[in-house]
Amino acid sequence: MTTKNRHEKFKVALIQMAMSEDRNSNLEKAVEMIEKAANQGGEVICLPELFRSRYFCQKEDLKYFELAENISGPTTGALGKIAKKRKIIIVAPLFEKRAAGIYHNSLVIINEDGEICGHYRKMHIPDDPAYYEKYYFTPGDLGFKSFNTSAGNLGTLICWDQWFPEAARITSLMGADILFYPTAIGWHPHEKAKHGKAQFESWQTIQRGHAVANGVYVASVNRVGLEKMEQNSAGIEFWGSSFIADPQGKIIAQASSDKEEIIFADIDLTKIEYIRQNWPFLRDRRIDAYDGITKRFLDEK
Amino acid sequence: MTTKNRHEKFKVALIQMAMSEDRNSNLEKAVEMIEKAANQGGEVICLPELFRSRYFCQKEDLKYFELAENISGPTTGALGKIAKKRKIIIVAPLFEKRAAGIYHNSLVIINEDGEICGHYRKMHIPDDPAYYEKYYFTPGDLGFKSFNTSAGNLGTLICWDQWFPEAARITSLMGADILFYPTAIGWHPHEKAKHGKAQFESWQTIQRGHAVANGVYVASVNRVGLEKMEQNSAGIEFWGSSFIADPQGKIIAQASSDKEEIIFADIDLTKIEYIRQNWPFLRDRRIDAYDGITKRFLDEK
Repeated sequence: MTTKNRHEKFKVALIQMAMSEDRNSNLEKAVEMIEKAANQGGEVICLPELFRSRYFCQKEDLKYFELAENISGPTTGALGKIAKKRKIIIVAPLFEKRAAGIYHNSLVIINEDGEICGHYRKMHIPDDPAYYEKYYFTPGDLGFKSFNTSAGNLGTLICWDQWFPEAARITSLMGADILFYPTAIGWHPHEKAKHGKAQFESWQTIQRGHAVANGVYVASVNRVGLEKMEQNSAGIEFWGSSFIADPQGKIIAQASSDKEEIIFADIDLTKIEYIRQNWPFLRDRRIDAYDGITKRFLDEK
Repeated sequence: MTTKNRHEKFKVALIQMAMSEDRNSNLEKAVEMIEKAANQGGEVICLPELFRSRYFCQKEDLKYFELAENISGPTTGALGKIAKKRKIIIVAPLFEKRAAGIYHNSLVIINEDGEICGHYRKMHIPDDPAYYEKYYFTPGDLGFKSFNTSAGNLGTLICWDQWFPEAARITSLMGADILFYPTAIGWHPHEKAKHGKAQFESWQTIQRGHAVANGVYVASVNRVGLEKMEQNSAGIEFWGSSFIADPQGKIIAQASSDKEEIIFADIDLTKIEYIRQNWPFLRDRRIDAYDGITKRFLDEK
């Protein structure tokens, strides 16, 4: 794990992209966009969840297990090369093949030497219509993670994790300056008109709330575009809207809902300290009274 | 504790008021506004934090301990009378005198028979410029609380508690349908122009986040008006903006930032169930991995 002297500031770039059916062209596009982001000063660059493929979890089908790959594997190899060439840090989600029958929704941190210096396995696994992840992914067993790098301390979470304040809290208590949430979330087309706005706002609001509660930056990276895994399915319209919130929960970078783009923000470590001094929530946590958090429900007498 | 059959719906009313220097007139005004709220169908009516007085915590001064009163005391007596008369439930904050040298920032639930059926003592106590609460209030030792009443299951928290996702989570796991946050929060006049908007948005956003995370209603009740405890102090401009959010975090009632008023919302228990079925966060919590929550910081190796 890299633990060089830290900057006071570093620039984060989020790659919002659309995925095609061709895994190789997705990787090529990711590398191109990483180059662009690096050209514009991006030092820590994050890709969307499962960026190598379409969001196959819309369907339960054995054949999609073929998309899984080892760590290290071809994806980490290709990204390691560009990380080393450009002296950048990459947050790279991938479908991890761990063993026959054990697959994870994972990410790795690749440092500026092109080496894997962090590994997180998605802890909270969803399962609702067209997001059948419990079929594919074994829940993470590495716990929550934050990785100290030459830029900053990078907290790593994935998509569904974003609905759980516990995940944001524990990752922040590990020293994270920023919480990354590579994501694949969108609208069911038939629901969009009626529920789309409320769903999007819930999603962004709770993540801004994590920023406020913990005095950390939050960076959420989504894909865009309509993806169907079958011709006759409705598919999912991924809502993009990747964003970065500051430690007060203020949006400081915001992407569109339908275009491929790169967004940037400067992460200022002095701002984290200033905000936490002003709003000293971490000082006042009642850790003597939080045991109930480790229960499913507090209905026992 | 009242545990009659529950309605599917009940109407909540929040009393946003300005406080004068006269404790008795504050109580009279509260009773008048409760009558109005009941006339408009309010079944569960919540007053702002420490509504009997100005926000004396702007200054550390022994003399303000005189404002504390026992439970039961004159305030619970007066409110019990109106609760019984109107067959309503009141969430009544007060400065509790427990023993010589032990005072709490508390609230009681008074049921429709005029009886005290719940008692909560503020767990998280702030201390920052002009909010010197650690001087006055012993941290709560009753733990987090939710009270099953003839209307709904009422979760009770107070002001600074609103910045702690743990408090919202545990109270929700106890069965709360709604989290009440009687509050006294405002702007330092000299900061308002520069930081006022961001501060207000952080405050509302994190509470909407609690609604989303837990699939509960959230009701926050603030005071309005500029209050000074000394002639030559800048005082605090309390920002009102009392609101009720639904279990998706959507604002369904919102008061102004500067006027006394009563806001209402229907709490629909079927909506809580519907939202939680659609977004089954409580199903997927990784309670095996949340132990870190009970630590101050995770910096030990």
